[in-house]
Amino acid sequence: MKLWGGRFSQNLNDLAAEFNNSLPFDYRLAEADVHGSIAWAQALARAKVITADEAQQIVRGLRQILGDVQSGQFNYATTDEDIHTAVERRLNEISGPVAGKLHTGRSRNDQVATDFRLWLLKTIDQIDEQLHGLQTAFAHRAEVDWGSLLPGYTHFQRAQPILLSHWWLSHFWPLVRDRERLAQLRGRTSVMPLGAGALAGTPFAIDREALARDLGFTAVSPNSLDAVSDRDFAAEFLFAAALIAVHLSRVSEALILYSTAEFGFVELADAFSTGSSLMPQKKNPDTLELTRGKTGTLIGHLTGLLATLKGLPSAYDKDLQEDKPPVFDAAENLMRMIPVMTGVIDSLSIHADRMQAGLDPNMLATDLADYLVERGVPFREAHRLVGKAVRHAIDRGLRLDRLPLSELQSISDVFAEDIVQVFDFQSSVDRRAAIGGTGHQAVQDQLLQAKEYLKSHSLTEEKNHE
Amino acid sequence: MKLWGGRFSQNLNDLAAEFNNSLPFDYRLAEADVHGSIAWAQALARAKVITADEAQQIVRGLRQILGDVQSGQFNYATTDEDIHTAVERRLNEISGPVAGKLHTGRSRNDQVATDFRLWLLKTIDQIDEQLHGLQTAFAHRAEVDWGSLLPGYTHFQRAQPILLSHWWLSHFWPLVRDRERLAQLRGRTSVMPLGAGALAGTPFAIDREALARDLGFTAVSPNSLDAVSDRDFAAEFLFAAALIAVHLSRVSEALILYSTAEFGFVELADAFSTGSSLMPQKKNPDTLELTRGKTGTLIGHLTGLLATLKGLPSAYDKDLQEDKPPVFDAAENLMRMIPVMTGVIDSLSIHADRMQAGLDPNMLATDLADYLVERGVPFREAHRLVGKAVRHAIDRGLRLDRLPLSELQSISDVFAEDIVQVFDFQSSVDRRAAIGGTGHQAVQDQLLQAKEYLKSHSLTEEKNHE
Amino acid sequence: MKLWGGRFSQNLNDLAAEFNNSLPFDYRLAEADVHGSIAWAQALARAKVITADEAQQIVRGLRQILGDVQSGQFNYATTDEDIHTAVERRLNEISGPVAGKLHTGRSRNDQVATDFRLWLLKTIDQIDEQLHGLQTAFAHRAEVDWGSLLPGYTHFQRAQPILLSHWWLSHFWPLVRDRERLAQLRGRTSVMPLGAGALAGTPFAIDREALARDLGFTAVSPNSLDAVSDRDFAAEFLFAAALIAVHLSRVSEALILYSTAEFGFVELADAFSTGSSLMPQKKNPDTLELTRGKTGTLIGHLTGLLATLKGLPSAYDKDLQEDKPPVFDAAENLMRMIPVMTGVIDSLSIHADRMQAGLDPNMLATDLADYLVERGVPFREAHRLVGKAVRHAIDRGLRLDRLPLSELQSISDVFAEDIVQVFDFQSSVDRRAAIGGTGHQAVQDQLLQAKEYLKSHSLTEEKNHE
Amino acid sequence: MKLWGGRFSQNLNDLAAEFNNSLPFDYRLAEADVHGSIAWAQALARAKVITADEAQQIVRGLRQILGDVQSGQFNYATTDEDIHTAVERRLNEISGPVAGKLHTGRSRNDQVATDFRLWLLKTIDQIDEQLHGLQTAFAHRAEVDWGSLLPGYTHFQRAQPILLSHWWLSHFWPLVRDRERLAQLRGRTSVMPLGAGALAGTPFAIDREALARDLGFTAVSPNSLDAVSDRDFAAEFLFAAALIAVHLSRVSEALILYSTAEFGFVELADAFSTGSSLMPQKKNPDTLELTRGKTGTLIGHLTGLLATLKGLPSAYDKDLQEDKPPVFDAAENLMRMIPVMTGVIDSLSIHADRMQAGLDPNMLATDLADYLVERGVPFREAHRLVGKAVRHAIDRGLRLDRLPLSELQSISDVFAEDIVQVFDFQSSVDRRAAIGGTGHQAVQDQLLQAKEYLKSHSLTEEKNHE
Repeated sequence: MKLWGGRFSQNLNDLAAEFNNSLPFDYRLAEADVHGSIAWAQALARAKVITADEAQQIVRGLRQILGDVQSGQFNYATTDEDIHTAVERRLNEISGPVAGKLHTGRSRNDQVATDFRLWLLKTIDQIDEQLHGLQTAFAHRAEVDWGSLLPGYTHFQRAQPILLSHWWLSHFWPLVRDRERLAQLRGRTSVMPLGAGALAGTPFAIDREALARDLGFTAVSPNSLDAVSDRDFAAEFLFAAALIAVHLSRVSEALILYSTAEFGFVELADAFSTGSSLMPQKKNPDTLELTRGKTGTLIGHLTGLLATLKGLPSAYDKDLQEDKPPVFDAAENLMRMIPVMTGVIDSLSIHADRMQAGLDPNMLATDLADYLVERGVPFREAHRLVGKAVRHAIDRGLRLDRLPLSELQSISDVFAEDIVQVFDFQSSVDRRAAIGGTGHQAVQDQLLQAKEYLKSHSLTEEKNHE
Repeated sequence: MKLWGGRFSQNLNDLAAEFNNSLPFDYRLAEADVHGSIAWAQALARAKVITADEAQQIVRGLRQILGDVQSGQFNYATTDEDIHTAVERRLNEISGPVAGKLHTGRSRNDQVATDFRLWLLKTIDQIDEQLHGLQTAFAHRAEVDWGSLLPGYTHFQRAQPILLSHWWLSHFWPLVRDRERLAQLRGRTSVMPLGAGALAGTPFAIDREALARDLGFTAVSPNSLDAVSDRDFAAEFLFAAALIAVHLSRVSEALILYSTAEFGFVELADAFSTGSSLMPQKKNPDTLELTRGKTGTLIGHLTGLLATLKGLPSAYDKDLQEDKPPVFDAAENLMRMIPVMTGVIDSLSIHADRMQAGLDPNMLATDLADYLVERGVPFREAHRLVGKAVRHAIDRGLRLDRLPLSELQSISDVFAEDIVQVFDFQSSVDRRAAIGGTGHQAVQDQLLQAKEYLKSHSLTEEKNHE
Repeated sequence: MKLWGGRFSQNLNDLAAEFNNSLPFDYRLAEADVHGSIAWAQALARAKVITADEAQQIVRGLRQILGDVQSGQFNYATTDEDIHTAVERRLNEISGPVAGKLHTGRSRNDQVATDFRLWLLKTIDQIDEQLHGLQTAFAHRAEVDWGSLLPGYTHFQRAQPILLSHWWLSHFWPLVRDRERLAQLRGRTSVMPLGAGALAGTPFAIDREALARDLGFTAVSPNSLDAVSDRDFAAEFLFAAALIAVHLSRVSEALILYSTAEFGFVELADAFSTGSSLMPQKKNPDTLELTRGKTGTLIGHLTGLLATLKGLPSAYDKDLQEDKPPVFDAAENLMRMIPVMTGVIDSLSIHADRMQAGLDPNMLATDLADYLVERGVPFREAHRLVGKAVRHAIDRGLRLDRLPLSELQSISDVFAEDIVQVFDFQSSVDRRAAIGGTGHQAVQDQLLQAKEYLKSHSLTEEKNHE
Repeated sequence: MKLWGGRFSQNLNDLAAEFNNSLPFDYRLAEADVHGSIAWAQALARAKVITADEAQQIVRGLRQILGDVQSGQFNYATTDEDIHTAVERRLNEISGPVAGKLHTGRSRNDQVATDFRLWLLKTIDQIDEQLHGLQTAFAHRAEVDWGSLLPGYTHFQRAQPILLSHWWLSHFWPLVRDRERLAQLRGRTSVMPLGAGALAGTPFAIDREALARDLGFTAVSPNSLDAVSDRDFAAEFLFAAALIAVHLSRVSEALILYSTAEFGFVELADAFSTGSSLMPQKKNPDTLELTRGKTGTLIGHLTGLLATLKGLPSAYDKDLQEDKPPVFDAAENLMRMIPVMTGVIDSLSIHADRMQAGLDPNMLATDLADYLVERGVPFREAHRLVGKAVRHAIDRGLRLDRLPLSELQSISDVFAEDIVQVFDFQSSVDRRAAIGGTGHQAVQDQLLQAKEYLKSHSLTEEKNHE
């Protein structure tokens, strides 16, 4: 079945038909399409374009289709050029000629935009729920791993000691921003295009606001040209997805590093690792590597859609059909990446001893400079003096804390006996007590804040949107 | 001057020094850097790390630097490796050893993140103001061009008649979404990293909330690792910028098309066109083409930064220095593109006669189908019948409205004398009366809504954020 | 079946297993995988690692699998984690324990790189053949549409008259570059990784050069780490594919423009157009729009893979598994785009009268300047004078060729009676007689060159590579 | 000065002028532009369009400009809209009215394409020379570090022992591919567009082949529309540059990893490291991180240009002006990245003892499996058995080589006394003796091959192109 063709004297070329066919991917919109059509039939009836009885026949047929879709029993025909055609073709088989009245006053242009938005609203909620789960995993680790210190790195080089719980929470907050972005995108997605027709609006007295309420949209599009043309929500979703992936890729990179034999800070559960077909001893963090790799793919999807949208004049161009493959693929990848990461985090073993062993007194060089600062030396000068001491220790082949006081004093006579108290990792950590610092109390406060966030941004909240 | 080096036994290689040097681009942060340092000196004094007197000396020196920066008289030294070094070097020249106390308890890691956010907050406001100006131009055109009809296109093919004002407004609403995105990004940017130190927090009793208030931030970062590592705001800005550019590119494409000799709907002012070095008759829409072309560049900047961020473990890595060139370039390009577009729109000539001439009775085929629908024919059947009529008219070499009634009736006997009333462009337009449609009243309502938006989202509102 | 696991005490988590599973896309490598394994079994026998008899059993089993794959009857098991596992599992079912000897001395790391290259070599040849077809279509149009003039555009504005055949050929040459790129990429792809093992090489006395000959590779990889790590060929293919798509998108944009009612230069065959579900009169160039849109998708795939490859240390990381989805999708899209474009070109109707009508005497302004140049006026001055004449003509509302001689002479007294000869489109075209110009003879020469290229770069040539 | 304008009644708006101005970046084309103009003047004289005397005057003026450009004394005027205008304006100042004859028969469209290609040819040669230098550094390291073993990694996990020289050479071969790509791109760049005019060819009897020889091009463009429209060379350069950067980013990632305290395999020279403004002990591999980060930027530039090119119809559109910023920036970044990397490699310290210490008997598990294979056990079974042994050793807390023979025999009775010979890293390495393997002899052969390549692809070769 085709939804057009009276004007044509030649059939579509087979290659062209296959090329145009969007069913291989837009079948995912089936449920949304049926929901949209049910609401449209009712709106047509309210506008007296069709009778209540006709609407009922149509809705009955659509409900049967919905059931088939949900149970996986809907049969797509190879001649259906897209999901809308498939549904209308089937409705025709079930309900007969009255099916031909459903498409009155609407176009596939507003229909597909509506379906896609409905699908995305649901998808956003699912991803948000998954992110809540991953955040919970991070917060949980921050609790159960309480008290462990690990080396903090900048430039992959040992920098300062930090609390492991602080590190876990450093991956919590980016997801707060991600969820905030998703929630705001949700608002922009929840704008109904239906009733925009092909581009100019519908000529029938459709109550678009009632229709929007029926479909769970919070607003109606104010301009029919923009309504069929706008794919900002798709691009914005791809951006949000890519950035979530970037966040996951950063956790991945760190954990891959920490699970090397050389670092040895963590060990992935067997259940989230794989082996080698050749080397029997290997245990590889494949899940984390794939997460990192798929991030590239998601960045590509964003790029691709923006390049597609660029330079299209307003209203509908067929290029817009190419919006769906990247969005579907990004969503499906992401909805695999997040729970796998949650599983990895939940099941990870920590080697606190290896972390502790990675703490090196050189990492307290800043504390040593601060020691001088507290005794009146300007920081810049203190930094220089301690730098000299570090150089001296390297040349002597000694750890910084083993440098005899006399040698330190030859660098600066401000150094005194009490410098031994500087070389304590726990108190170095606890000195960072300001908000957001790695001190025990500060991290405790931070954890509390995180847990309150989790409570107030729980799963049910999103459900209320609908 | 260098802010480090005591530990090193060799000078930095010249090529490496030039490679690392970020001053060629981060000089743009000079003002933000000085503001940040003034607030930091005061915070150090409040925390009793330095005396009030020392703070005053430092602040006095910084104010002098600020003046020099603002008047363009600040001298950068080729040995300054970045803007922070340049400012501290100069402060040292002005204020002497006390300058060495400024960097106490902070790192360039939290400092640069703070500077960059301060710069971006200001930039967002400027772009928002420019977008308000462009929206005003679109709304103004919708008003002054009131009443003109033009062919609406889908697939670049004539589709249905629309109001020119409706078309103008179709470019207004995407900018509403853009400004909403910017405002939301503003919230996420207005989070202060200062006090995060290199990665672990500051060991001094800094009141970070007071510091944030001094600098105009609305929140403080909850985790020091995340604070120095987070570049979400930069990536999100690049996305917002790329999407704004995509919107401008779509207007551009349409206007380039409409200003061809063949369409002839509009003519660019000479002031926004250029000529050919070879062909004396040429008048080219260069400004619009460049806008379209630069959109590619902005998409590239977004891609590039996401690729840079991918796979970096948390806390600071030097890769992050590469965040600034794309953001600065995107902002500067965008801040040229928007006002140029505003100028183009404001100065454009409309050829309403050419638009009118572009209206073709075939564009009323849908209205003809609706005519049948109103007489009880299911739409799908009506579509088929009218398609046949169109085919027949093409074969006969006639316009659809010139097809004798008898011939129409041989296709469907529902056609009657009164079909003549269908072939009226104005009434076709006005039938699209539902919200968002192209009917005169609907567009009038839409225009009102747009003007109210402009009033309630005026320039002053943003200023209040600060 | 799993190719590893002895070392593991826990089964792979279900989500992780699904996440890691590459069978949903790498089943496309089945044929290449079996070919590679047949050659490997023979190489093992030659190296006396297995007996000739064992090799024969294995090869017999693999040939059966190959038959099943080619006839579409191969059964994949949901527990196969990739195509290599699937084939080895099935071999085990067919041939029993001897199957366990096949994987001796190789790893999936070198195996998958080999499979992927074999697949790509075949794909490159198919695309090259399709491009030959499309080039033939362009050259054919240049011949059949011989003699028609059309307006040449720069900036979408009428510039100078050109031969339609010249325009067709302007789309021929980019494909010459594309095919040259593919041929050169072919050389870099035809390097065999097999025998590199997991990363360090194979410990058995495999004659890699003989193995390469068996598989049709022209070289063996010189470094085992690079062999398993190198995905340059995949990235380069995605670049070549994206650039081919860009070329197709440029043809598309032009033809979409030329098929608007306003230009009316060409009309797509019904067989390559589609209609509207709402507007019965519409005939849309969907195939061209999709081609343009898919170009964005292909650009995204290239971006994505480069982002994935960035920052991976040498040897194998699992991120590399993410190389295949974009390459497969790009190839499949491209192999649909090219023949559809060929079909569009072959079946296109030309409206030479509309092209002719689009020629405007203003397009001869450069010829008018050249007239002055030939009479001694420096070109820059001539350009200025003719610019003035154009301005004057516009102000008078006249075409340039209708401007009275006296008025032209008031601008420059060099103008004389013989300027009438300037206003002839055919002779303007023929003046461009230098190589590559639009003059009839120059285009005739160009066409000859194109046809010779087609002969010397025919399909059989590629076949000889193998 | 402006090269057009007679036809215009209004001056260009200031914002629009600044927006269109390409001088801030295309000044880099100054030399190429002057060279192109000198050759063009001579071609005009040969074609008798200008006299020999006029040509001489023009060339004399251009030579003076060339000298000024090369000595950095050329003065750009703020009113010059691009480099071509600047040069012609200056020529006019020097040579008077005859300067107005230079632009005869050419357009900025063919001129800029010519300039850009000339610039790129030179740039390709410079980059190629730098790559030769970096390859030399890798080969040199392979020689001086001869004999050291290090752990080979896959998935960042210890896999098998390899020769350090083998690892160094794994970074040599990707650059061979890069240089091959550059050389092939060079061929496609060396095609002269000059003489294509604005789009239709030049109406004067220019001998384009002689002109090409004068300018060092190896071919002339066969189609004038394609000549002014083709930016494949720019896109292809950006791809080649991005892939080179990807290769450098992979070396960077590995060296950053190897220079962590935990790995400790290598140490960067102080001359290629930087310190921290806060932490006095820090020594950071900034040069490597920046290299990795800039790779993102280069990927972005490629993406951006492809997005810009997409959908432009043939001949010139102003969007094409946006080709230069990404190409210039990519080239400049790359030409800093390569020599810095060369410096890093040349000055790196190796800690062979730490590498040796990183060898772990578990890395010989594959050799243990091969031991079983040699004794008749099918590899798949051998892999399983050794996996079990590894698991058993982990459970017992023992290294694989310390597992008592009796316990191994309880897993498989094929194990015998002679298994001790398996646990030798040197002989494990040497077993990988096939071409491309890590055995000493194989690597020796590989090194020889690399050195021969360097000799036959030396700097002079490229020079001969010109």
